[in-house]
Formats: sequence, structure tokens, C-alpha cells
Amino acid sequence: MRTASPSYDELCALNLKLHRLGHLGSIAGWDQASMMPAKGNEARAAALAELFGHMHRLRTDPALRDTVARAGQEDLDDAQRANLREIERNWRLSNALPTELVERGHRATMRCEHAWRQQRPANDWDGFLENFREVLTTSRETAQRLSDLMGVSPYEALMDRFEPGMTCATVDRVFGDLRQWLPGLIEKALARQDERDRQEPLVEPVGPFPVPAQRALCEQAMRLLGFDFEAGRLDVSAHPFCGGVPEDVRMTTRFREDEFLGSLMGTIHETGHGRYEQNLPRELLGQPVAEARSMAIHESQSLSFEMQLGGHPGFIAQLAPRLREAFGEQPAFEPRNLHRLVTRVKRGLIRVDADEVTYPAHILLRYEIERPLVEGEIQPEDIPALWDEKMQSLLGLDTRGNFKDGPMQDVHWPAGLLGYFPCYTLGAMFAAQWFATMRRELADLDGSISKGNLQPVFDWLSSRIWLQASRWSTDELALRASGEPLNPAHFRAHLEQRYL
Amino acid sequence: MRTASPSYDELCALNLKLHRLGHLGSIAGWDQASMMPAKGNEARAAALAELFGHMHRLRTDPALRDTVARAGQEDLDDAQRANLREIERNWRLSNALPTELVERGHRATMRCEHAWRQQRPANDWDGFLENFREVLTTSRETAQRLSDLMGVSPYEALMDRFEPGMTCATVDRVFGDLRQWLPGLIEKALARQDERDRQEPLVEPVGPFPVPAQRALCEQAMRLLGFDFEAGRLDVSAHPFCGGVPEDVRMTTRFREDEFLGSLMGTIHETGHGRYEQNLPRELLGQPVAEARSMAIHESQSLSFEMQLGGHPGFIAQLAPRLREAFGEQPAFEPRNLHRLVTRVKRGLIRVDADEVTYPAHILLRYEIERPLVEGEIQPEDIPALWDEKMQSLLGLDTRGNFKDGPMQDVHWPAGLLGYFPCYTLGAMFAAQWFATMRRELADLDGSISKGNLQPVFDWLSSRIWLQASRWSTDELALRASGEPLNPAHFRAHLEQRYL
Repeated sequence: MRTASPSYDELCALNLKLHRLGHLGSIAGWDQASMMPAKGNEARAAALAELFGHMHRLRTDPALRDTVARAGQEDLDDAQRANLREIERNWRLSNALPTELVERGHRATMRCEHAWRQQRPANDWDGFLENFREVLTTSRETAQRLSDLMGVSPYEALMDRFEPGMTCATVDRVFGDLRQWLPGLIEKALARQDERDRQEPLVEPVGPFPVPAQRALCEQAMRLLGFDFEAGRLDVSAHPFCGGVPEDVRMTTRFREDEFLGSLMGTIHETGHGRYEQNLPRELLGQPVAEARSMAIHESQSLSFEMQLGGHPGFIAQLAPRLREAFGEQPAFEPRNLHRLVTRVKRGLIRVDADEVTYPAHILLRYEIERPLVEGEIQPEDIPALWDEKMQSLLGLDTRGNFKDGPMQDVHWPAGLLGYFPCYTLGAMFAAQWFATMRRELADLDGSISKGNLQPVFDWLSSRIWLQASRWSTDELALRASGEPLNPAHFRAHLEQRYL
Repeated sequence: MRTASPSYDELCALNLKLHRLGHLGSIAGWDQASMMPAKGNEARAAALAELFGHMHRLRTDPALRDTVARAGQEDLDDAQRANLREIERNWRLSNALPTELVERGHRATMRCEHAWRQQRPANDWDGFLENFREVLTTSRETAQRLSDLMGVSPYEALMDRFEPGMTCATVDRVFGDLRQWLPGLIEKALARQDERDRQEPLVEPVGPFPVPAQRALCEQAMRLLGFDFEAGRLDVSAHPFCGGVPEDVRMTTRFREDEFLGSLMGTIHETGHGRYEQNLPRELLGQPVAEARSMAIHESQSLSFEMQLGGHPGFIAQLAPRLREAFGEQPAFEPRNLHRLVTRVKRGLIRVDADEVTYPAHILLRYEIERPLVEGEIQPEDIPALWDEKMQSLLGLDTRGNFKDGPMQDVHWPAGLLGYFPCYTLGAMFAAQWFATMRRELADLDGSISKGNLQPVFDWLSSRIWLQASRWSTDELALRASGEPLNPAHFRAHLEQRYL
């Protein structure tokens, strides 16, 4: 018979409680972005600050130090041991931050994000700065405290919240490599695309695309990708996201009448996040070991769906008839033309509208700005000039005076999610690595996808990623899933194969 | 200079915290009824039980006994004194209930209400009973504990949660009076209606009534009635309700393509609740004294809107052109015909579809069943036979075997809201009393309403009811608003004036 593990069990009970309270925070956060009327904001911000403050106090109960230590001495199996590792990590991180700072941070980001929704369309950089300064102040304090605790740089400390164990050395190496070949690849991809356009003109879809038809199309795509609508929803918000809880996943998108691909591909992206969450293991639900591994791994799922599958000619052939059903017959919906539309490379100002070739340039830029910003080497006032300079050098674009399509375009900074951006490109790299592995391991993967049979993909992702949750570190997860840790060569090979 | 009141201030801080946590519970509850997919229910129930359990622990902190006692000795102004009275009352009620019972009760009602949504359309009484027994068990335990504490009967103890200070003696007196004259009034109103129909046939509206047009019409009616859409929403749920928080009121309705009056009048009803909440005083928001007085007073607002205004020929003349706009020109929308439709008297099975004349019969029936049910004189198995018998005697209707339109029709019992039903009819009586007072005090009230000027009504309700919040007991509030405590003669006079 198993030795009793009272301290471990006590920690599990606490985590279940936190999971349940977190559920309310997630739903209230989704509501705030997708449903809440404007005048509800102050009260919502106060309510969420109260909840998060309470959760923080639970996590920082001084008695936990001993409980965690005692649990380490108990007789635990491997899964419990892995759970305890995550619990210890969370405990360490939580105890680095006083409740007052956590609550102040939440209030600052709530206020800044809410105001940003009006300020962005108004291009009101000065108004934005007023709130963002407080977000940055609390972020820097947070970074410094975590940095002191972990013995890493302040920016690494923030990044670690999203991608545990990730270092600036790794990011610098991987992104340094990217900086070498990306500009050349963009050039070549654009030249090849121009050549192709001359041979055969691209046919653009003709709008308007009524929102109800777009919504139905997005829901069809979600069904095709296995999203469970009995355990989730699709709604509309200013900035698309995937929230809620594993049992009830809340995805959002946004619609424009004159364009439908942005919404459709965005929905496919969020569906990758959504399926990861919906398919996390249920046995230990509520425990840290049953949560998604990290944000780079999360992005590797959304980008597996959006880029690896969504840009796959076989998958696009499945979408084409559904487009004709939604919007009527159009020459643009011919599958090869549609594939050219979906994989179009274009230098643009907006990260979320970027194709997979230029996207990493947006991430390089943000990494190169937010890292010195967090570490106090630059100030918020310096951002616009740096943004201009980097958009010029990376993509040849001028953003002077255009704050709304520049540093105000993303929700991340107003929401205090500093240190998140690298995860997108790390995720794109992991996604390419997963598909390279699938192609090695599964017979005729591309044939299956072309026949509309996505099950082998879902099965692989489910067993290698989704059901593994946080059982292993990111490095170990990647190693077990694909035989190697992060290897950006797969991403480069993917882009070269698809675009050159 | 004012003497410091540290204990009172401490209580205020606690109540603000509870208000903020309650905000999350309200929004999650609204979401559960209007947005949440089926598989989210177990997790939501657990999350809400966790939250309510935590709030209950905050309310029952043993240290509060002394704090409340000390606050009573502090130098408080009248408003603070009234707030302390409400705080003391809440403290007494909360401390009658152990956390375990509160959490068990929430779990039971969550499960029962959720299952009821499927069981009601399936007419599955046996399945319903299985969950409802546990709801009743926890309700009886709750009633008994409150009864012991307050020295009132168990049913009075439950009723007191919704209508503080209300006694069975008062309900028996007022409802006894009602039982005397209501059946005769129903007979006479129906006879008069038949006579009128013979003179001039009633013209029924011709459907279908598209849901988007109905939704737009409901929103127009809400605007006409002063609802602030920047501080609230209208959505759809199985059972219409008004939830959310004063800063963000969440109203729901439900639509049928073949009928629009039910949804429209239901929306007007909920708008009364909504405006009360939206217009509670802001200075002490978060304190009990700034909350709505009671459920009978709340219903007096919804019924002021739905019955007093909604059935007013002058108001209906305002609605008529909007109906034509929504659904096209129809003879049924001629204002006098429309008024006959809105004020139609009909013996029916469904309480929420009942007109204001037969509605009190539904309440008499429920009161006469749930009171002995709570007090253990009858068991859940006895309900259907009693229901049949009373529907026969009160309205001459047979409901044998029809559980879904009988005891399963309302959300109240699955949701554990035993003791609530009397508030509807008490509210109808108060509403008639408010309008009788307005007619006495305001020059040409009916002329104003007919000209579409509802401001005098809103101003009166705002100053006499909304902004008074919980400053006074219900009796005192009624006295200050109308010069007398509850007087059911106004309700009888209203019905006689409108229907005889």
C-alpha cells in the first residue's frame, strides 16, 4: 500500500481551489473583452484585482514553505513528483511578489488595456503613455523581484513566466540565426511571388462578405479541426484570443465585411490553442502538471493549425468548397489560387495580419524593444523612434506618427504581457519541428491531409503534446516528441520548401 | 471634527470586498444561464461553490462579532447607522449557516438547475425529483437554522431572505383578502372581455416575427424606458432574468418566431429591475445600504414597468409605430387593438405568460405548496397532485401528467429560491400603490404618459425608491414613498379600473 502523502495532498487541494477561483477570473476576463459594456470596466477591474489578490494570498501563505518541503520527503509517484516540481516553481514565483504589487499591477493593466481600446483607433499615443507608464513601473518592479530570486536578468525573469527556463542566450542565438537568413528569404519569397504573379495573375476574392456567413464559415473550420462546441464558444473581441478554462474554452475573433481571410485564419489559429486546452489530461485537472506546458508550446499548437495545416495545399482544398458555400462561386476560390492567397507574403505594419515569412521580423523588433525597456535601458518615450528605425531596417516600412499601427497595435503591452512576444516565433519553430517529425513517422501525412483526414495529426499532437501537459520541461517535451530540443532548422526548411 | 469609526470602517472595507467578489459570481451566473456550453457546468458549479464558500467564510469570521458590537458604539451619521443595521442583519443571517451547508446548497442547486434545463422539455419529473430532493434537503436545513435564530417559522425565515421582515401573518392576511375577490374578478373580467370581443373582434398579429426584428424592438423599448446600454446588455436565456451588477446590468429574454408579445413584455419587465439596479445610489456602492431594498420592492419596479406602464393605453400608443417598423403594417397593431392584446386575460398553465389578473392565482398556488413543503408537512412526491388540485380550483385547469407546464415550469425551485414567489404579488400590489400615489401627486400623469413623456414616472421612482435603496425598512420606505405601508386596495382598484 502507498504511504500516505498528507502534505502533497494538501498542496493538491490548494491548487484545486486556485483552479476553481481562476476559472471565474478567466470567464470574467473573457467577458470583459467580448461582452462587457464600457461603464462596467472600473467595477470589473476592482473585482478582478480582489480575486487575484485573494489567489495571491492563498499562494503566499507562509505555512506553505513547510508544506512544500515536507511534500518533497513524501513517497510520490512520477506524475506526482512532476506536479510537485510545478507546484514548487509556482510557489517560488508567487512568493517573490507582494500582494500589493500584484494588485497594483492588475489595476494598472486593466485600466491601460481598457483605455487602449479607445486610444488605439484615435492614435492617441500621449493618452496611452499616461497609463502605460504605470504598467511599465509595475512590470519593472515585478521583473526586478523575480530577477533577484532566480538569478537571471529582469527580462529573462518576465519571459520565464510564459516560457519556463527560456534564456536570453537561447533567444539571442535562435533570433540571431534568424536575423542572418530571414531578410534574404523575404526578398527571395517576394521575388518568386512576383514571378508567379506575372505568369498567372492572382485573383482576389470579391466582397462584401456578410458577417453571419463568415461566422458560420469559422465555425465550420473549427468543427473540421475538431473543436468541441459543447465545451467552448466563438465570440467577437477587439483582439482575438483563446481564454476560458479547459472544460469551457472561450475563443474570439473579429470580422470585417470587406475581408474574410484574416478572421478565418485567425480563428484557425485560436482553434489550435483551443484544442490544446480542451484536450489537456482530465485526471489531474486543476493541478499545475495538467496545465499547458508553456506559451511557446501553446503557440506551437496554434501555429500548427494556422500555418502548418492552414497553409497546406491539401487542407486548403478542403476549405475551398466551404468558401463557395459561404460566399457563392468565385474564381478566387479555386484551390490553387486560394492557396496563393493564404500563403501571400507581404511586408505590412500589423503583426497579427503578417504572413508566416514576415512575422518573425515583427517579433525580432518587439524583442529588441521590450527587452531594453524592461531593463531600464530605454524609456516609453523612446519607443516610437526605435519602432520606426526597426520597421525601416527589417521591412522597409515607415511608421512615423502612426502609433495605432505601430507600438499601439498589440494588446500585450497595455495588458502587461512583457516577455511574451518571443513565444510566437519559438512556437512557429516548434510547429515546424512537430510537422517534420510527423512526416518522418507517419505514412503519407500529406496524402492524409489532402484527403481531409486530419486524425493522424490530431492523434500525434494529442499523444505527444496535449496529454503530456506539464509533465516535462519544454526541452524534455520536445526531445520526447521529436527526438531533439528546439531546432530552428526545421522552421527555415519549412519556409524554404513552401516559399522558394 | 467627526470621531473616528475604525470598526465601522473595517466593516465597510469587508463589504466592499464582498461586493467585488459578488460581482464575479453575478457575471459567472449570468454567463452560466446565457452563454456557457453544456460541458462547462460541473466546473462552473465547483468554481461558484468555491467563491461563495469563500465569501461565506469572510462573512462568518468570528472576529466580526466584536467588530459589529464596537461599531454600534461609534459615532455614526444616519446613513452609516442604516448601513450598520443592514450589516448586522447580514452578519446574523450568515452566521446561522455553516460554510459546509452553504457550499452543499450551491452545489445542489447548480446541479438541479442545470439538469432541469434538459428535464423540463422532456417532462422528466422523476429525473428532476432526484436532484430536487437534495435542493429541498439543504433548503430545509437552511430554513431550520434561520428559524431557530430568528424565532420565526422556517418558511418565514426563507421568505425573510428576499423580503426582510415579511411574515406569514401578513402574507396570509393579504393573500386571504385576494382569495376572496380574485376568482370573482377573473370571472367578471373574462365576461367583459367576451362581451367586448363580440362587439368588435380582436385582431391577432400575424407571424412569423423574425428574431433580429424582435431583438431590435426589445432594445428600442428598453431605450424608451431609459435603460443605459453603456452599463448593461440584453441577451437570451431559458428563463429571463436581470442579473449582473449595478454598474453592468445583464438582462435576458427569450424569443419565439411565432409570438413577440411575451418577449417584448418580458423585456419591459426586466427593464424595471434593470433601471432600479442601474440607478441605485453610487456614493455608498458596495455597502448593504446601497443595495436594492428587497425582492418585493424589486418586483414593484419590474411590474411598474410591465403592468402599470406596459399596460397603459398611452404607453401602448408609443409602442404601436415601433411594432409597425419592426414587423410591417398590420391591423393588429392599431393602438386600441394592441392594448386589448397586451391586457388580454386568459386562464393559462404558465405563470410567466400569465396576465396581471390571473397571475396572483399562480402565486397563491405556489405559496400554498412551497410553505408546507419547506416546513416538512408535504414531500416533493406530493407536489403534482396538489398542483393539479389547486390549478383546478383556482383556474379550472387540468395539469395531470404535464409536469413541464406544472411544477417544473419555474427556475425558482431547482435554483433553491423557496420563499420568493410571494414577492411577485406583493410587488404587483406595491406597483399599484406607487402609481396611485403618482396620480395623486403629479399633475396629469396619464396625459404625460400618453404624450410619451415618461420622465415624471422615472423621476418619482428614482427619488422615492431607487435612490432610497436600503436606507429604510420596506414598511418605512412604502410609508415615505406613498404615505402608507402596503395597502392591497390599490391593486384591486387598479385591476377593477382596467378590467371591469
